[in-house]
Amino acid sequence: MAEQERAIRTRRTILFAAAKVFQEHGYQAATISQILAEAGVTKGALYFHFPSKEDLAQEVLLSQNQDFFVPDRPSKIQEIVDMVLLHTYRLQTDPLVQAAVRLSLDELAHGVNRGESFIHWDNLLQERLEKAQAQGELLPHIVPAETSGVLVGAYTGIQSLSQALSKHQDLSTRVTALLRHLLPSIAVPSILASVDMSQDRMLKLHADMTAQAQAQAQ
Amino acid sequence: MAEQERAIRTRRTILFAAAKVFQEHGYQAATISQILAEAGVTKGALYFHFPSKEDLAQEVLLSQNQDFFVPDRPSKIQEIVDMVLLHTYRLQTDPLVQAAVRLSLDELAHGVNRGESFIHWDNLLQERLEKAQAQGELLPHIVPAETSGVLVGAYTGIQSLSQALSKHQDLSTRVTALLRHLLPSIAVPSILASVDMSQDRMLKLHADMTAQAQAQAQ
Repeated sequence: MAEQERAIRTRRTILFAAAKVFQEHGYQAATISQILAEAGVTKGALYFHFPSKEDLAQEVLLSQNQDFFVPDRPSKIQEIVDMVLLHTYRLQTDPLVQAAVRLSLDELAHGVNRGESFIHWDNLLQERLEKAQAQGELLPHIVPAETSGVLVGAYTGIQSLSQALSKHQDLSTRVTALLRHLLPSIAVPSILASVDMSQDRMLKLHADMTAQAQAQAQ
Repeated sequence: MAEQERAIRTRRTILFAAAKVFQEHGYQAATISQILAEAGVTKGALYFHFPSKEDLAQEVLLSQNQDFFVPDRPSKIQEIVDMVLLHTYRLQTDPLVQAAVRLSLDELAHGVNRGESFIHWDNLLQERLEKAQAQGELLPHIVPAETSGVLVGAYTGIQSLSQALSKHQDLSTRVTALLRHLLPSIAVPSILASVDMSQDRMLKLHADMTAQAQAQAQ
């Protein structure tokens, strides 16, 4: 058991080191040697967990979904807003999520399946939009598969812009502005009137997610 | 005159070569030697036009605005849609514009003022939104400075997503979906009803821009 725990910890150390090196040098220029130096582990340990640089990148990309937990809500539009708020909080605070988003936008990350993380988000949102539609929360013309693509794309750019102009300092403000511009074209007015996208809610969502992750780890 | 023309041509050759090298290797890894080899010019010629790699990047960034021409329209919302359509066409067809957009999103382009091109677009849109507001085209709650940021950010991400998933093949479809989701929260219904965002209009706008650029060159 202690050995298994040690393996999990080593894996995590390597992943954080890889995220940092990808973040600093970009995927193409990053080398396994840099990651080894950053992680302080042996070559053998690294290759035991990750057979290649592509695998490391793919795991960093997937890490943004790890432990991501948003409770069920009666309103599926609120659930979508909650997902957006929680991701926003993590993007401002979690280096692994920052590295994952950066990698997903790295056009020079050849051999890495960058599309996968976009499709993952698209699927999560589409699923909620379909439920929202089934319970009458959406305007009649909405096609969930189209609207999910608009949400994922628009969010992606809002974070790029916020990163370029303020290193994500103004991310929350820009994200709520985006939601206020998009939701009225998606949801019926009675749903809009009760959507909560406050800073307080964002902090509460993160606390809940952390508690959930700890409960599962025990 | 012939000499001046030659200088303009050389400058353009260097700029295209730089765009290609930045596109292939990213800003950080790109070298002046690679750009020289690609352009087939002497070191002296390059440094005569561009004192440094940063200058080259800044010029590539600015190039997306070069010759960008959208005629005045009675509806300023239509004028904004026209700008979006024209930029979309250029992003699908012009390697210099592609390189400029990629550079503006290159987090490793240290020393390059990436924010400038976002702010340029933000200003262009904000100016049109203010005119639209003055002539009653906008919904009462709209704040032009906020809405311009939403438009620039959302567009940026739609192109990133389209680049990652289809190498910009589905860009037009995604862009019109975005506009259909954003405009109803921005413009009054009577304006929405007459907005044209067709493929035909996009092609016509590009033809007009090209004619305008040729007329100015003469």
